[in-house]
Amino acid sequence: MAKVLSYGMVGGGPGAFIGDAHRRSINIDGKAKLVAGAFSRSAEKSAEMAEILHLDPSRCYADYKQMAAKESEREDGIDFVVVVTPNVTHYDICRCFLEAGINVVCDKPVTISLDQAEELEKLAKEKDLLFMVTYTYTGHVTAKGIRQFIKNGTIGDVRVVMAEYPQGWLAKEGDTGGKQGEWRCDPKLSGGVNCLGDLGTHVENIVATMTGLKIKRVLAKLDKIVPGRILDDNDSVMVEFEGGATGLYWTSQVAMGSDNSLKVRIHGSKGTIRWEQEKCEEFTIIDEDGNIKILHRGYPGIPESAAKYDRLPAGHTEGWLESMSNLYSNYIDCVNAKLEGTFNENMIDYPTVSDGAEGLAFVEACLASSNNNNIWVDLGRR
Amino acid sequence: MAKVLSYGMVGGGPGAFIGDAHRRSINIDGKAKLVAGAFSRSAEKSAEMAEILHLDPSRCYADYKQMAAKESEREDGIDFVVVVTPNVTHYDICRCFLEAGINVVCDKPVTISLDQAEELEKLAKEKDLLFMVTYTYTGHVTAKGIRQFIKNGTIGDVRVVMAEYPQGWLAKEGDTGGKQGEWRCDPKLSGGVNCLGDLGTHVENIVATMTGLKIKRVLAKLDKIVPGRILDDNDSVMVEFEGGATGLYWTSQVAMGSDNSLKVRIHGSKGTIRWEQEKCEEFTIIDEDGNIKILHRGYPGIPESAAKYDRLPAGHTEGWLESMSNLYSNYIDCVNAKLEGTFNENMIDYPTVSDGAEGLAFVEACLASSNNNNIWVDLGRR
Amino acid sequence: MAKVLSYGMVGGGPGAFIGDAHRRSINIDGKAKLVAGAFSRSAEKSAEMAEILHLDPSRCYADYKQMAAKESEREDGIDFVVVVTPNVTHYDICRCFLEAGINVVCDKPVTISLDQAEELEKLAKEKDLLFMVTYTYTGHVTAKGIRQFIKNGTIGDVRVVMAEYPQGWLAKEGDTGGKQGEWRCDPKLSGGVNCLGDLGTHVENIVATMTGLKIKRVLAKLDKIVPGRILDDNDSVMVEFEGGATGLYWTSQVAMGSDNSLKVRIHGSKGTIRWEQEKCEEFTIIDEDGNIKILHRGYPGIPESAAKYDRLPAGHTEGWLESMSNLYSNYIDCVNAKLEGTFNENMIDYPTVSDGAEGLAFVEACLASSNNNNIWVDLGRR
Amino acid sequence: MAKVLSYGMVGGGPGAFIGDAHRRSINIDGKAKLVAGAFSRSAEKSAEMAEILHLDPSRCYADYKQMAAKESEREDGIDFVVVVTPNVTHYDICRCFLEAGINVVCDKPVTISLDQAEELEKLAKEKDLLFMVTYTYTGHVTAKGIRQFIKNGTIGDVRVVMAEYPQGWLAKEGDTGGKQGEWRCDPKLSGGVNCLGDLGTHVENIVATMTGLKIKRVLAKLDKIVPGRILDDNDSVMVEFEGGATGLYWTSQVAMGSDNSLKVRIHGSKGTIRWEQEKCEEFTIIDEDGNIKILHRGYPGIPESAAKYDRLPAGHTEGWLESMSNLYSNYIDCVNAKLEGTFNENMIDYPTVSDGAEGLAFVEACLASSNNNNIWVDLGRR
Repeated sequence: MAKVLSYGMVGGGPGAFIGDAHRRSINIDGKAKLVAGAFSRSAEKSAEMAEILHLDPSRCYADYKQMAAKESEREDGIDFVVVVTPNVTHYDICRCFLEAGINVVCDKPVTISLDQAEELEKLAKEKDLLFMVTYTYTGHVTAKGIRQFIKNGTIGDVRVVMAEYPQGWLAKEGDTGGKQGEWRCDPKLSGGVNCLGDLGTHVENIVATMTGLKIKRVLAKLDKIVPGRILDDNDSVMVEFEGGATGLYWTSQVAMGSDNSLKVRIHGSKGTIRWEQEKCEEFTIIDEDGNIKILHRGYPGIPESAAKYDRLPAGHTEGWLESMSNLYSNYIDCVNAKLEGTFNENMIDYPTVSDGAEGLAFVEACLASSNNNNIWVDLGRR
Repeated sequence: MAKVLSYGMVGGGPGAFIGDAHRRSINIDGKAKLVAGAFSRSAEKSAEMAEILHLDPSRCYADYKQMAAKESEREDGIDFVVVVTPNVTHYDICRCFLEAGINVVCDKPVTISLDQAEELEKLAKEKDLLFMVTYTYTGHVTAKGIRQFIKNGTIGDVRVVMAEYPQGWLAKEGDTGGKQGEWRCDPKLSGGVNCLGDLGTHVENIVATMTGLKIKRVLAKLDKIVPGRILDDNDSVMVEFEGGATGLYWTSQVAMGSDNSLKVRIHGSKGTIRWEQEKCEEFTIIDEDGNIKILHRGYPGIPESAAKYDRLPAGHTEGWLESMSNLYSNYIDCVNAKLEGTFNENMIDYPTVSDGAEGLAFVEACLASSNNNNIWVDLGRR
Repeated sequence: MAKVLSYGMVGGGPGAFIGDAHRRSINIDGKAKLVAGAFSRSAEKSAEMAEILHLDPSRCYADYKQMAAKESEREDGIDFVVVVTPNVTHYDICRCFLEAGINVVCDKPVTISLDQAEELEKLAKEKDLLFMVTYTYTGHVTAKGIRQFIKNGTIGDVRVVMAEYPQGWLAKEGDTGGKQGEWRCDPKLSGGVNCLGDLGTHVENIVATMTGLKIKRVLAKLDKIVPGRILDDNDSVMVEFEGGATGLYWTSQVAMGSDNSLKVRIHGSKGTIRWEQEKCEEFTIIDEDGNIKILHRGYPGIPESAAKYDRLPAGHTEGWLESMSNLYSNYIDCVNAKLEGTFNENMIDYPTVSDGAEGLAFVEACLASSNNNNIWVDLGRR
Repeated sequence: MAKVLSYGMVGGGPGAFIGDAHRRSINIDGKAKLVAGAFSRSAEKSAEMAEILHLDPSRCYADYKQMAAKESEREDGIDFVVVVTPNVTHYDICRCFLEAGINVVCDKPVTISLDQAEELEKLAKEKDLLFMVTYTYTGHVTAKGIRQFIKNGTIGDVRVVMAEYPQGWLAKEGDTGGKQGEWRCDPKLSGGVNCLGDLGTHVENIVATMTGLKIKRVLAKLDKIVPGRILDDNDSVMVEFEGGATGLYWTSQVAMGSDNSLKVRIHGSKGTIRWEQEKCEEFTIIDEDGNIKILHRGYPGIPESAAKYDRLPAGHTEGWLESMSNLYSNYIDCVNAKLEGTFNENMIDYPTVSDGAEGLAFVEACLASSNNNNIWVDLGRR
């Protein structure tokens, strides 16, 4: 019987959407239990959150450094930490926990520069710790199924990838995106990008995950559409993959009527696959004779590597929380296996810090392209 | 700060879909914690489940009677029990826990006869206990939104209700539906109906919940489509509501390609509302001039009585588990309020044992109609 | 090279939708040319229409009797007549042209009683004339494709047919449906039904055409929903087919937001087929393993007996006019073959007066059921 | 009463899809009649076509030059000619008929170079003749409705345009596109582009028509995806409009599963409009508060400038032929008005030779960009 792990959280104070969502996602399977936290830079708010969550007050910390120090000293210290703070703070916090020997889960983008991301990547390796970056959407059973089909050659060689992620929440002149928007739109706090860091990294990651392709170079145009915007709110990116496939990515925060419309269409030499996050319970496979087939999560045709994450039968809709739960489910299994000495790298089925670093490489190349008259920029990892 | 309640479960042993689903639904919010159970008629399997769930072995019971007795004696006994056993057993189990003074949640249909359901209804009232019947689909934010819109007069007087719930899992001659199918298709264990008890009661309940209408009489045709079927696997029901509205319900288990396709269309004197369970994140409102408007969960236009159940923003799909969580969230709040002496009936926003009894009244009237050349049968509650 | 036929029209004066639609449908292929007409009971309006249509004034007739007489005497008289007048007049007009030895096309319902329809059926046979009833929707390539798939056994034995045809144009209390509504809602002019005669006959015909099944008996409930309605505006019909399949039909004129939403779902022992008139360029086939496949008009998988009617490649949408054109295309080929002496019955791929009579048998049985407490009524043709 | 015009056709011999489609489109309204033709470079095939079409053999010409000469001499000569030959021949043929004083309709792209297009533009002006280029898709009622809504300010200032037109018919290595593919993929016969000339010009035109925006500059990447391709079969184009709006266009012939999937999404400062050619009977308008509204052709909300082209009520699907008919309907009215002396420029509601020239300017700028490392290229008309 697998042990129920303990975890702590940095960020996720009262009213914070993403911290709440992570906690619920972990709850669904009950494989780990929240026991510690530094939920806010305000000690008062942090304590308020701890009470709401029925936490032992002695494990509600004033700041993350104290938390890392204390928890690493405890016999029953946390098995991993979940970092859900503003992007600019990810690097310091993750570094701190890794140095304290604690496994890390961090929201995306993992840092605000490639250098930072690669340092964390190196550190996690040195410390032999497991580091997940929560690219939520790769957790969907259907996304995992697509990855397997492409790996199996179902659509032949990938040729043309169309991916987009429009939202509309920042479309009006007055829209600031609240507290989240504040740091997202401040160049210092965001690494010089807004929409691209938030949505573009999701697009980069899900395409990479589904297709297994590496980007060779990009040509990007980052637009500031709404008058007064300091950072990009609409991005177009031409992509060339190693091996010759081509791609076109679009992300936007000014597309009124779009909620969270991540969509991927992958055209290969033997077929096409189409997927939409907002209809995450199904996807479409077209074969080379043009036969259009729709597959639902829960159907016998879904590959086992994806289907094993099912919690409900077809037609009993799973959603965003479950996609996140799937990431955690595998991550916790891996941490558990480490504790029990049965872990090996092949067990990993979650996005790692290396995937996070790829995202930053993508962001920096796009930014360089956009700032240089939209020339092609290679996506070199150091 | 609201107390985290304790609950127990009867049924839901290893491999049982519905017990697992109830547990996950409760986990999402963390408002109650599973502490006791009689998960299977096999003591061995029950213990196995308790271990999987990391339960205190002393609160894993050999049978539900023992559980009701012991838990009602404990200072820290369970605050409510969740009954997820085969339908035929609901009555005895629920009665037992009510008599022990324990609040009850029971899967639908609440019993296999109207008499039984009305006895439980009476008993719960006498004992002043809270009794929820888990008609899952009424928990969807969109379903609750529709109820509010109709209450507000958005579509005027309801005139024509079209509701259907086709599935395809029992469409082949060989399909028995596994263990679940066994008791569902045995007349003694099911109250004389199969498809109607399973799916028809959902249809009856969601229409009643959305529209607030009471059924006056029904004319039903219960078919045994697949050769060899002993009970109905496809049902057509004409419905007349009090006040004059008309309805047509269809439920089926032999509709290949249908997963879990509960769908309701409500036509009023001033507009139409359309909703599909498998697209539970949205619904359509049409006004009297034919303007078609689509509303998503999370949009500002959703009434507060529904929107208050949101956990994620629009486009971050919620699904089946969340609809169940919504029922539990309110039920647990009500139980908590009872414990704290702040409860009143108006707080109830979950399907009660009375709604369960309505379902049985519907089933019995349909069965009587179908067995008598499809005449009209009144839906008299005792 | 096939001769271009000559045709005449009765009805279809200025502003009449259906006459205009018939003329355009015939024009698309250019296989027949309008040369004569009695377009209105008003000689003035009839002449006005003749001028609009650039007709020889000498072939614009004051009334249909004169037209039948004169045209049958001419060497170059019309090869067929198209009757697009109010339903109550169909019988007399069709009879008159048949007696004059002229082939007839008549809008549906062919008459307002089964007796009338069967007389016309008998007369056409005696006179050896071709009689088409324009059930438009069976002309769609996709509808013809479905018919062939079912004939080929693709979905096995038909078990459960769900068909519906809601419209919303008569949903408001003030809605009279204009001039058309006047005679449609007058019991004397309509044969005692409104919605059922207009929409129900389409449903009956398309199901019969697609499945090849004959209805054994019906149980019908004809509702007058909108206050003040004299005839039915919403109908529910339970259907039993010969051979044991079951069906449920719904037609309505009070479903706000529905334009012209004829929809058929046919569930068989080996699969399911779904079709919607408003998405007439595609249909869905589900096999017994639940695989969902979408077929578009123009795809290689469409059977030749349907595909031969294609005018445009897939994705170049064909619509309502083309479905009507397909009926005329085959009808005109048949008339031409008769003229050339090469005709045989197997060439007929259009709805005949016998199909029209089936429609009236359906209407009369439903009316008898609805007027007798919704009992089952057999669908006896004389 | 408007005169029925006479027209001739160059191209459109036996088996040619597009000539057939033009003839049917014109037939639907009966406003013009085909009386002359040079249907093929083969005199035999041309005669064969004339016979099929029941044409006077004396007006079936051996070549277009003879036709232009003879028809311009006749008292009853053609009122306009329809040119539906391979692109490379358009220039010479159109020039010949213009010089003969005959109005011209030409398929798109109007020529294979901007110089040629501008010469025709100039010549038509000098000769005071009407010249339509058949960009079919702008003829849809819904496309015209969108144009009017945007003109009215319904979505405010246009900010971001996403447009795409994928097809899949040339996705396989063996796919040559038949006879059409031959000249389309031959650089000499096509102006150096394949996919961009065929599909890209449609995208450029429909966006320009709907939004009224002029393109300032483009950055294009023309791909040859399928091994062995000589010309582009997949194109990505970044677009900057005068006034500052941004756009992203994608066209492809290698997207398996896409039939003819022209799709436009226009995001403005006050709302969004979405339209898909394959669902041409509807479009979606989203307002600045995120309200999603679906409008069908035939609804009262459609602006009169679009609705006046309706032939059938909502739900009675119109399609590709009708969109083409709408162009011809207006063109023929304009030619008629010219003949009657009542014409003025404001009557023109069809795509002109100037629109055709814009298309060539777009193509040439994209080609220059793609051939120069994807730099920005201005879209200068001479």
